[in-house]
Amino acid sequence: MHISGSRKYPTEVFLIDESIDPEEFIIATYALYGNPKDYLTLTGALALEQTTGTWVPVAEETPEVRRKHGGKAVSAFEVGIPKKEEGQPRIFVIKIAFPIVNLGYQIPEVLSAVFGNISMGGNLKLLDLQFPKSFTEHFTGPNFGIEGVRKILGVWDRPLVMTMTKPCTGIPPSVVAKLFYESTRGGVDIVKDDELLADPSYCDFKSRLKAVLEVQKKAEEETGEKKLYAINVTDEVNLMIDKARWAVENGVNCIMVNVFATGFSGLRALAEDKKINVPLVAHPCMSGAYYGSPYTGINWSLLFGKFLRLSGADMVVYPSAYGKIPLSREDYLRVAQTLQVPFHNLKPAFPGPAAGTYPGVAPTFINELGIDFMMSAGGAIHGHPMGPAAGGKAMRQAIEVAMQGRNLRDAAKEYKELKAAIELWGIYGEDVVKFELKA
Amino acid sequence: MHISGSRKYPTEVFLIDESIDPEEFIIATYALYGNPKDYLTLTGALALEQTTGTWVPVAEETPEVRRKHGGKAVSAFEVGIPKKEEGQPRIFVIKIAFPIVNLGYQIPEVLSAVFGNISMGGNLKLLDLQFPKSFTEHFTGPNFGIEGVRKILGVWDRPLVMTMTKPCTGIPPSVVAKLFYESTRGGVDIVKDDELLADPSYCDFKSRLKAVLEVQKKAEEETGEKKLYAINVTDEVNLMIDKARWAVENGVNCIMVNVFATGFSGLRALAEDKKINVPLVAHPCMSGAYYGSPYTGINWSLLFGKFLRLSGADMVVYPSAYGKIPLSREDYLRVAQTLQVPFHNLKPAFPGPAAGTYPGVAPTFINELGIDFMMSAGGAIHGHPMGPAAGGKAMRQAIEVAMQGRNLRDAAKEYKELKAAIELWGIYGEDVVKFELKA
Repeated sequence: MHISGSRKYPTEVFLIDESIDPEEFIIATYALYGNPKDYLTLTGALALEQTTGTWVPVAEETPEVRRKHGGKAVSAFEVGIPKKEEGQPRIFVIKIAFPIVNLGYQIPEVLSAVFGNISMGGNLKLLDLQFPKSFTEHFTGPNFGIEGVRKILGVWDRPLVMTMTKPCTGIPPSVVAKLFYESTRGGVDIVKDDELLADPSYCDFKSRLKAVLEVQKKAEEETGEKKLYAINVTDEVNLMIDKARWAVENGVNCIMVNVFATGFSGLRALAEDKKINVPLVAHPCMSGAYYGSPYTGINWSLLFGKFLRLSGADMVVYPSAYGKIPLSREDYLRVAQTLQVPFHNLKPAFPGPAAGTYPGVAPTFINELGIDFMMSAGGAIHGHPMGPAAGGKAMRQAIEVAMQGRNLRDAAKEYKELKAAIELWGIYGEDVVKFELKA
Repeated sequence: MHISGSRKYPTEVFLIDESIDPEEFIIATYALYGNPKDYLTLTGALALEQTTGTWVPVAEETPEVRRKHGGKAVSAFEVGIPKKEEGQPRIFVIKIAFPIVNLGYQIPEVLSAVFGNISMGGNLKLLDLQFPKSFTEHFTGPNFGIEGVRKILGVWDRPLVMTMTKPCTGIPPSVVAKLFYESTRGGVDIVKDDELLADPSYCDFKSRLKAVLEVQKKAEEETGEKKLYAINVTDEVNLMIDKARWAVENGVNCIMVNVFATGFSGLRALAEDKKINVPLVAHPCMSGAYYGSPYTGINWSLLFGKFLRLSGADMVVYPSAYGKIPLSREDYLRVAQTLQVPFHNLKPAFPGPAAGTYPGVAPTFINELGIDFMMSAGGAIHGHPMGPAAGGKAMRQAIEVAMQGRNLRDAAKEYKELKAAIELWGIYGEDVVKFELKA
């Protein structure tokens, strides 16, 4: 009989998702756009292309090999515009299960499988990955998480305040140190380097750390508060690990990395290195290259929520919906959710919605996120008309007042730093704030 | 502090799907169309509306009650048209997990939860339900399945041939019996009543069975083949069970029901009744009321693939893509898949793509479905120019020739019944067949 050979839908490829042992697979969900001749065949082809198959049959791709190692097409649905309306691509949501036995417990090979060659195949967007516990337990994830960072800082009852030193580039170590001192003196908990300042000749990494350490203790003593300095170790990954170790040996108490520029592996290597026992801050720059299009790339909350927790970020800086980067309110909220909801053995991480954050956003953030987030501001601290110390103070005042449920403008009468900030930038939802790049 | 009370996204509602114990939840996937102010809040609201919540807070909906009994919003993605393009509804794919502890092991309460009030709330389509083994093991599912039906018939190496008696209505028991005899003599394996013929005064159920039984043995003896008569017991559910029991006691060897008209419970009651120990055929009439719109209702493959297996259908008649009902090729294939792929303890069921099936479709069906399906035809058997026996013969000849991989038109030179059928209706993919309702 020639029949079984010609069956288009062998059951070793097509399965109902309930029949998958969830501990043995990573399940990917995609949005697929276009007008395929047959979206079921296409789903099966994608499942095999990313596991055992290629464009022609090969002798050793036996049914047994497909059964054990082949991707499984577990569901396929059409959504959206009815097919009969011409001129629109059809939209499908498909789910493919990838055997973990093919992948090992590493992120690069997961990416290579779930969004490898097929990422180049047309309008296909990776929406989500479901990682079983059998996979995530091979990752340490955030070493500190929300609770661990709060414990270091001794701050339990309010959002944290983070600043990124501004200007981004062009300043020597002494200015970095001065801005650290001023902003922390005012009330900032965590100072992180700007993502654009890594290790330039005029402000090299070692000199910068040395300069900050000289003022860090002073600021802590004066305020009676613990302060974190997140030094930017972004570099070629092998060099980065050595730099981070050196920084920890020399007294740094926090590290940041531009994780989308180094790859998730860079962050994971930092998190799983026993010698690098300080909290890690992940910066979102370059992530837009993945998530920008609705038709291609990788979903925002998967990148930030799941991959950054797998990779070990304790604190995640990312665009808020109320600043200078165009992002929907749901997108910003969804990232905060996915960083904090239960995810097997992986601790929750601090969301730090940023990029145009100012004191007047505090009531909105607190109402939407509770207290487990970081008010993360560069310009609104360092650009405060009364200086960075006042910038830090205004931010702490805004948080205090918002947590009391008081109107910010009324309460600002009692706080001159907050009053100045509100006069300049207003209150989110009450006043219009214009974000313009100043040349 | 007023904060925790005002948090919009409590973690007892929003969870990552990996953190759900899959054995404790039925997970529903929806497509949601529209322009909600905030699709995350909406997802959470849907999860609570269908479990513990109502439109106002009530005293006993404690955090503990929500934790144990509340629906969990496990994922939410936007797909399709970018938000900025005006005039189009946004499209979201959302997933909500429903605690099985709320539901028990019954289909009506599952439907009430996963697509109850919210089915009336706007453009929301239920795409899929994931049922864990802890749920399905409370259902017997198909008692016979593909293997069991083959065993009764003693047919292992080809598709089955089913016919529905035509004309649909208006014929007395003697004509039903005559058509049974003729078509089975020609090669039909299973004769099922038309869905429009249940228990009318002119052809009542008991008289019809009696008349068929008189010719059934004769046909079996003459052909040396076992034949099934699927009597239509569709009625009010309580009456239907008694009728089915009576029919089995009186010698019927197969039963059919218009499952979307009686509800899934009717079919399940037949399947789980120990006295009704014959295979069950499910007919799709009225299912279009659920699946017709891309924006609302319930997905086709969920209705047919999962619900009919849960309910215990051994054989499922449904529209093919090559007949008189407009359905996409993927839709017809997807139903065949979902009826056959692994689904915990539930046996696979026979797909019977129908509604305009004729011998010339055999090569396409066999190429796409293999041999585990039923060639299901009413008009092409009973409307064969040489009569129903020739109609049955032509169908068996088409199957034989197609399985040999021969061209149907060439091979038809050797078979006069097949030749006549092909001259009249052609070959799918080679000739154009017009389906017109004849008045």
